[in-house]
Amino acid sequence: MSVKVIDGGVTAPSGFKAAGLRAGLKDGKTNKDMAMVYSEVPAVFAGTFTRNLVCAAPVQWDREILNKYGRAQAVVVNTAVANAATGTEGLANSEATAKEAGKLLGIPAETVLVASTGVIGFQLPMEKILKGVNLLVPELKSDRESALMAAEAILTTDTHKKEIAVEFEIDGAICRIGAMSKGSGMIHPNMGTMLCFITTDVDIDQALLLKELRKIVDETYNMVSVDGDTSTNDSVIVLANGKAGAPRITGEGPQLKTFTEALLTVCTYLAKQTAQDGEGATRLFTAHVTGAPDRETARTLAKSIITSNLTKAAIFGRDANMGRLLCAMGYSGAKYDPSLVDVTMCSEAGSIQLVKGGFMPAFSEEEALKILSPAEITAEVEMHQGNVEATAWGCDLTYDYVKINADYRS
Amino acid sequence: MSVKVIDGGVTAPSGFKAAGLRAGLKDGKTNKDMAMVYSEVPAVFAGTFTRNLVCAAPVQWDREILNKYGRAQAVVVNTAVANAATGTEGLANSEATAKEAGKLLGIPAETVLVASTGVIGFQLPMEKILKGVNLLVPELKSDRESALMAAEAILTTDTHKKEIAVEFEIDGAICRIGAMSKGSGMIHPNMGTMLCFITTDVDIDQALLLKELRKIVDETYNMVSVDGDTSTNDSVIVLANGKAGAPRITGEGPQLKTFTEALLTVCTYLAKQTAQDGEGATRLFTAHVTGAPDRETARTLAKSIITSNLTKAAIFGRDANMGRLLCAMGYSGAKYDPSLVDVTMCSEAGSIQLVKGGFMPAFSEEEALKILSPAEITAEVEMHQGNVEATAWGCDLTYDYVKINADYRS
Repeated sequence: MSVKVIDGGVTAPSGFKAAGLRAGLKDGKTNKDMAMVYSEVPAVFAGTFTRNLVCAAPVQWDREILNKYGRAQAVVVNTAVANAATGTEGLANSEATAKEAGKLLGIPAETVLVASTGVIGFQLPMEKILKGVNLLVPELKSDRESALMAAEAILTTDTHKKEIAVEFEIDGAICRIGAMSKGSGMIHPNMGTMLCFITTDVDIDQALLLKELRKIVDETYNMVSVDGDTSTNDSVIVLANGKAGAPRITGEGPQLKTFTEALLTVCTYLAKQTAQDGEGATRLFTAHVTGAPDRETARTLAKSIITSNLTKAAIFGRDANMGRLLCAMGYSGAKYDPSLVDVTMCSEAGSIQLVKGGFMPAFSEEEALKILSPAEITAEVEMHQGNVEATAWGCDLTYDYVKINADYRS
Repeated sequence: MSVKVIDGGVTAPSGFKAAGLRAGLKDGKTNKDMAMVYSEVPAVFAGTFTRNLVCAAPVQWDREILNKYGRAQAVVVNTAVANAATGTEGLANSEATAKEAGKLLGIPAETVLVASTGVIGFQLPMEKILKGVNLLVPELKSDRESALMAAEAILTTDTHKKEIAVEFEIDGAICRIGAMSKGSGMIHPNMGTMLCFITTDVDIDQALLLKELRKIVDETYNMVSVDGDTSTNDSVIVLANGKAGAPRITGEGPQLKTFTEALLTVCTYLAKQTAQDGEGATRLFTAHVTGAPDRETARTLAKSIITSNLTKAAIFGRDANMGRLLCAMGYSGAKYDPSLVDVTMCSEAGSIQLVKGGFMPAFSEEEALKILSPAEITAEVEMHQGNVEATAWGCDLTYDYVKINADYRS
């Protein structure tokens, strides 16, 4: 029952096509800005969405499809404009986008999901969006290149595309999961991250898929933070079309175990990529809390550490300023005994214990600087108060984060 | 019953002395780094302290005095080292500092409060601290200059001193409140702010003073955020020595009303100063939420707006990016109807409505830029869902915030 990472993206599973191109939503000449994913047959659909009360029109559209039907066959994605805080006109625009795609694809509008990312508070430029849909449909292909184009087309301030594909066997049939995601700023998911699209040719019960997706998103995307701001558009969407030919998964068993292991691999990879590619980030900063009395305490502490602005700035400055990390644990709201906590900082350059029993013994600043210099830093936090653990992923706070966000609209 | 702001600081009320000087805790030659405040007679003492679980040794010392005695006569303050996450040695050092001051002043160590601010996780340099206490005691004076020296000596990354004095009348007697505070980074008080020392010659019941102080801190310091990080050392300390000669305030009535109005004036002024002088800040950013259904909703929304990194970066960039503000309201956890919200941005350059009924109508970017350019910006958020209001104060997120905090220890 092994899960193998393979080269590929959303077109890796059987029966999926994708396209990505420039519809002219963004300034500049080279940026792709719209993408489409299509399943040759109707697929089981599961999704998790933002808990932000100000949730975007496309999220409302998709959520309704999830609640009413649990099936979908295509997704249309646009960047540049988030279609959030846009009132009834925004909802009508999401619906019009789905209708246009449905008409061209010959499928009901109620099986077309939409997703938007970009500036909040402005209406979609519908002429360009509809033109984009018309350009996308003829471009839909199942090859590697088309998945790449789609993965590029959904990016905003991301510095590189985020995609992955994995392969595994269920009862002798080769199955695959493919995925692409985007997200760099306004990243503090409280349900899903900005946008993540997962395709699979596994055949699985819809309610079961949704239940497993929620568990996995909770351990992956919901443990990532770039800036503490939970977006209005967070969406993780899975389409399962059953084209691999494996028997339907309907409940617990080795088949479900293999599939969830594969899905976890995909989501963990993309969640980490999202943190690493945080706006302006130079370092991936992981907090791994062990020895906690319960799951909620472990999660709260890990997330508070990677969310603290002061800790993030210290990671940028390669400063062994553990006081800030201890401080961030202290104000997290978790109940624990601070005087038992040990912290060891780790990287490819080695590891150094900086906190022992809640306070900082003398240490070599030179050694600490060396260990805090690589591009991936992990804080190993051992609480000695139980045996539960949790991991959260974040990044450093840099000049470039401020630059990107002081200038974003202009 | 009017409250008049007068020139002065902690020595403005009768019977208080202060001193501030350089004890050599900080690098460089010119920075003052220790201060003392002294009342000629034992004073009623009320205080609010950080709710951070990792709370500093001086906070533990002061809290014990508050709980056991409710009286104090002196405060010793040091900068450079916070004496937090320092274990039993840290507690012993706070006690030794109080003992040395008590011995020199001829008062019990249990009437000497201590306060520290600076780097977390390191022990106090006790030789320098005790030398500092010995230098401070002979310098204690009741003049204006000594209050100034003390106000300067408690600063860390603050760019200017924060002090105020007010005068009012109670039953014909002239009474005063004086105060000084510090705080620029790690500012997201959840009880008090970094350090604030308030003196008054009013005579007031201790339990009543504590009750009123808590209410006022909740409306002032607890509504300020610079970076979302709640410090380990937050303390607001009030000493009331009764030397003005006014009758003792023991309960509700015009006397209490005048006094609390004066105390609110002092705390509001200093809380705003703290936000305005946030690390790296170029703008004071105020969120004034009106028309809320209840107090908690108003407070939660106001605080979420001024705490959002993305909104703060937009304020730095003078960008009318209201989507971020609406997004920060949406993820705050407050329950409300986003489709009723209006937002008007105001400054000395004028005002412009940017959100109407939850979304953004077209507006003049040129006009918005003009209004967002001054050093004080207010977001007037009308919810149309009740009649409760709340105000929170923050600042913009700038390159200098990152610079200060990537380099803080070095």
